[in-house]
Amino acid sequence: MNECTTPLWPDPSALGPVTDLYQLTMMAGYAAEGIDGKPAVFELFVRRLNPNRSYLVFAGLEQALGDLTRLRFSPEQADWLRRQPAFRHIDRRWFDALPEFRFRGDVWAMPEGTICFPGETLLRVEAALAEAQWVETFLLASLAYPTMVASKAARVVEAARGRPLYDFGARRGHGPQAGLLCARAAYLAGFAGTSHVEAARRLGIPCVGTMAHAWVQSFDDEPAAFAAFARHFPDSTTLLVDTYDTLEGARAAARIEPPPRAVRLDSGDLGTLAGQVRAILDEAGRSAVQILASGDLDEWKIAELVESGAPIDAFGVGTELITVRDAPALAMVYKLVMLDGVGRVKNAPGKRTYPLAKQVWRRYDDAGRMIGDMVTAADEHADGEPLLHPQIVGGQWVQPPPPLDQVRDACRRQRAALPDSLRLLDGTGAYPIAYSARLEAEARRLGL
Amino acid sequence: MNECTTPLWPDPSALGPVTDLYQLTMMAGYAAEGIDGKPAVFELFVRRLNPNRSYLVFAGLEQALGDLTRLRFSPEQADWLRRQPAFRHIDRRWFDALPEFRFRGDVWAMPEGTICFPGETLLRVEAALAEAQWVETFLLASLAYPTMVASKAARVVEAARGRPLYDFGARRGHGPQAGLLCARAAYLAGFAGTSHVEAARRLGIPCVGTMAHAWVQSFDDEPAAFAAFARHFPDSTTLLVDTYDTLEGARAAARIEPPPRAVRLDSGDLGTLAGQVRAILDEAGRSAVQILASGDLDEWKIAELVESGAPIDAFGVGTELITVRDAPALAMVYKLVMLDGVGRVKNAPGKRTYPLAKQVWRRYDDAGRMIGDMVTAADEHADGEPLLHPQIVGGQWVQPPPPLDQVRDACRRQRAALPDSLRLLDGTGAYPIAYSARLEAEARRLGL
Repeated sequence: MNECTTPLWPDPSALGPVTDLYQLTMMAGYAAEGIDGKPAVFELFVRRLNPNRSYLVFAGLEQALGDLTRLRFSPEQADWLRRQPAFRHIDRRWFDALPEFRFRGDVWAMPEGTICFPGETLLRVEAALAEAQWVETFLLASLAYPTMVASKAARVVEAARGRPLYDFGARRGHGPQAGLLCARAAYLAGFAGTSHVEAARRLGIPCVGTMAHAWVQSFDDEPAAFAAFARHFPDSTTLLVDTYDTLEGARAAARIEPPPRAVRLDSGDLGTLAGQVRAILDEAGRSAVQILASGDLDEWKIAELVESGAPIDAFGVGTELITVRDAPALAMVYKLVMLDGVGRVKNAPGKRTYPLAKQVWRRYDDAGRMIGDMVTAADEHADGEPLLHPQIVGGQWVQPPPPLDQVRDACRRQRAALPDSLRLLDGTGAYPIAYSARLEAEARRLGL
Repeated sequence: MNECTTPLWPDPSALGPVTDLYQLTMMAGYAAEGIDGKPAVFELFVRRLNPNRSYLVFAGLEQALGDLTRLRFSPEQADWLRRQPAFRHIDRRWFDALPEFRFRGDVWAMPEGTICFPGETLLRVEAALAEAQWVETFLLASLAYPTMVASKAARVVEAARGRPLYDFGARRGHGPQAGLLCARAAYLAGFAGTSHVEAARRLGIPCVGTMAHAWVQSFDDEPAAFAAFARHFPDSTTLLVDTYDTLEGARAAARIEPPPRAVRLDSGDLGTLAGQVRAILDEAGRSAVQILASGDLDEWKIAELVESGAPIDAFGVGTELITVRDAPALAMVYKLVMLDGVGRVKNAPGKRTYPLAKQVWRRYDDAGRMIGDMVTAADEHADGEPLLHPQIVGGQWVQPPPPLDQVRDACRRQRAALPDSLRLLDGTGAYPIAYSARLEAEARRLGL
């Protein structure tokens, strides 16, 4: 007793109602109309890029589909729904069957880490209408955020020109779960590690840490704090030198035995301070001690520091990464494109959707650079490599999802295949996306 | 087999390592130094307001403290830590004891829903140094986001001038958990309901829903889709009229029997369309049918629609609310202010912290309007009402957290007590915050 009665970490085996009410009213309505079992195709795509972006990195698939295959309602949840006034006219057998309801459809998707673009189908659900409708909110909430973080992280990786990057975002996420999602997406896109312990443990990501100001404040003076830390963590000491005065802190750090692996700057003019701290360390014969910088860093600040030649060896990125601060929402949608074998469209202003189940084909030049994508109907063929692959068939994984390091390698290779103009931070690069003649004709036929 | 092996909904009883690595290295280091048991005071506060804000609404406390009282490490987690290279020189007894480690300290905090300001202590942890250090990342990740959402939601509530507001954000959150946190924080700050089914069920929030474009697309035509929905949900029909052509949709909706409760506009020029749709409904004798508007709405757009006299009865707010799109991060920090009875400060540029355990006192004028807050040492007394109250003592709740509706009422009363200038959307209102002479003197003494 005397407890919080409403923890917000739901039982992962009962995420069925982690969705919008209208998905469930529509499911019940489809059943009442006898059309809940009609074969439907929904597609997930992004309508437009956020400012300065030229591409997206698709991420979050393993967890999204993992949850999808387990998605269900508990009997308590089903009973609660039955008692909602909105459902008063729905046959109670629908609620009785709800705890047995599962996603038993198919999912095609681009592999995680794939470089992708607006207007391309990233994921396609082929399932009974009610099942495909059910999973909309959950899929969007599970895929958009990791894709945003991975896409942002890829920009930061470009900016850092090979210097290692660490995710320090955990405390700034939109709830504790975001820290886990962010750590994974950032690593997938090329970050070198995370400070998030549980993310590192669950996902096999290198775990990194330094010290907080509280450590320094907990000792009589800074040299005592540094010496104590070096005593207990001699192999991995990173000393935070800005608690009182950064240059004094650097001088204290330079005298520590054994020498620390790195010092960390977390405030002030990082470029200038890095130069001064480097000089202090070098003069003390501590040339091997690295400098790690953190503190509201984003791709622009990192690019500027790198281009200015600031002697910074690695960067910690927190707030800007985990909140995707410059563009914290993504126009990812999930739309009905085919029902009972017939193409469907939507025509709301600015929200058009091409009909039919689709495939995306990518072409490369002889040097292995991406030169253009073609979107076709799923049963068409085009030049190049098809990007959508079956992931879930009949509600079951086709094969185990690839290890995270494999996804990370694939992502790195794909970034290397991007046209140079798309790798710039200013978002001026455009990539050719075309739709097949058949898709265009079908869209016209349906009045789009 | 063939499954996602890394679901990201951790066991709520083993959230101990949902934190940054450095918290755990520092904990181990404090133990190795024999200072882990020293009595420490950490305080949580916000450094500055985000643009256009004049105040904050404190939220997220029930879940944060609920998790805090359960926070622990599983034996597997402790064992994993032991095997990390960083911990190589740490006595293994520290790891052996970790599964028994709990937060057994005290927490003072402002009640949820309290209007608060930068520089004020929102929450104070008094605990053994290692325990207080442990919970930093978790508390920040649990409290900053709900506080951001509640503070944003309060602005939207001001803008809507009494019209009901519904949280439609679930799909746009930074991971599925954000939907639950957002629904709660928005309701607490004055929203009327949420579309998030599991949030509504767990938290007792009114659950609302309309229909998606997919419903309309799943029938031969729009009138058939509307008629079917009205058949199955006669009491709560809200018809989405913009799938093909909004005015045609409105005409179809006006002919439905029984009449819908509302129609929903989700695209286009909402102000103009609302006027046209209102005329169509009125001419058809459907004056009782309400108009609900949604589609990338924020406090500014809603204020403009309300001020223009657009006949919109209620608003659905999604992306802008759940991502707090205009300001998705909050400068909330958690700092050591006292150790072993002695005040501690930090002096990094732009990041100063007042020493000592503190209390915040609020004064009101005779009309019940807030006129100023005073921050004092915890054992000082000042005029007005003290805002920090004991919530957790010895690791246990002092009393059960208040019901959400009670928090919501308190928040509404507090918003009503705000000076008018602070309720404007433009953030021009300033509120007087003072520090007691003793705090100022102690800060000077410590060199701040």
